[in-house]
Amino acid sequence: MNTSEAIRTRRSVRSYLDKPIPKGVIEELLRAAMSAPSAGNEQPWQFLVIDDRKKLDSITGINPNAKMCKEAQVAILVCGDATKEKYPGFWVQDCSAAAQNILLAARELGVGSVWTGIYPIPERVQAFKKHFGLPDHITPLCLIPLGYPAKDTAHVDRFQQNRIHHNSW
Amino acid sequence: MNTSEAIRTRRSVRSYLDKPIPKGVIEELLRAAMSAPSAGNEQPWQFLVIDDRKKLDSITGINPNAKMCKEAQVAILVCGDATKEKYPGFWVQDCSAAAQNILLAARELGVGSVWTGIYPIPERVQAFKKHFGLPDHITPLCLIPLGYPAKDTAHVDRFQQNRIHHNSW
Repeated sequence: MNTSEAIRTRRSVRSYLDKPIPKGVIEELLRAAMSAPSAGNEQPWQFLVIDDRKKLDSITGINPNAKMCKEAQVAILVCGDATKEKYPGFWVQDCSAAAQNILLAARELGVGSVWTGIYPIPERVQAFKKHFGLPDHITPLCLIPLGYPAKDTAHVDRFQQNRIHHNSW
Repeated sequence: MNTSEAIRTRRSVRSYLDKPIPKGVIEELLRAAMSAPSAGNEQPWQFLVIDDRKKLDSITGINPNAKMCKEAQVAILVCGDATKEKYPGFWVQDCSAAAQNILLAARELGVGSVWTGIYPIPERVQAFKKHFGLPDHITPLCLIPLGYPAKDTAHVDRFQQNRIHHNSW
């Protein structure tokens, strides 16, 4: 699938088939994530791949907005690593670019995904840290549940001319 | 260009040919940006397209790390719009996903780009706000200079197995 098609047709997918995702596909998604740009090429990211059924099922207990984990085959927890930051405060942008790469690579490979937010909600960050035993220097940014889509998603055009300005406000 | 190739081969491009970028290409990049996911689909973004030569040249005065603007044909200032946020604090992630879409769509179209950081450096944010007359509710996240690459960039593999963890830390 070409890049612009993946970008334009990517949608949040929250309902999945009961069909395993090959390990090679997950590695492709992580390879895409680590290809993201980062401030000063600091690459301040870590990825926790969750494919244990009980662990996936338990996530709804710490984030009620992540109910789709009960159907997901795998979820990737995208985390910032404070020890790798050269430019303080840029890890959110770096890890967001990595997360977006995961969504787009998944779209190309026919895998449905959805970006579920964690940071900067303090209680949610703490709950994920505790649940997955993350060290102090690791902050979970978002969780991306993954699975083959149970249904097709409609195309949506979000283009808005009025969000574009020229040379000055 | 397929999605994974664009993701894997995208590099920061800081040197450009003296060759105009068609307006339709810039619109494609903005269309890609606005296709990004956002918290609760809030789409809290605004884009300032800078193609005035004097404006482009003046940017080095407010960000010495953006010298490539002197060669760039166009630059896109990606901004957060506080009035459009439904989920406070998520605009950085939303706008970062939009920025990453711009870089990937540019790569597909043969246009070189580079993500130059602004937020969260307070002085830099203020300098851009003043220089481009941004209202109080608009925060510049990053500036993306664009141009056809003056030279090929080498492929770099950033994959690191030790950034991947399984089921718990």
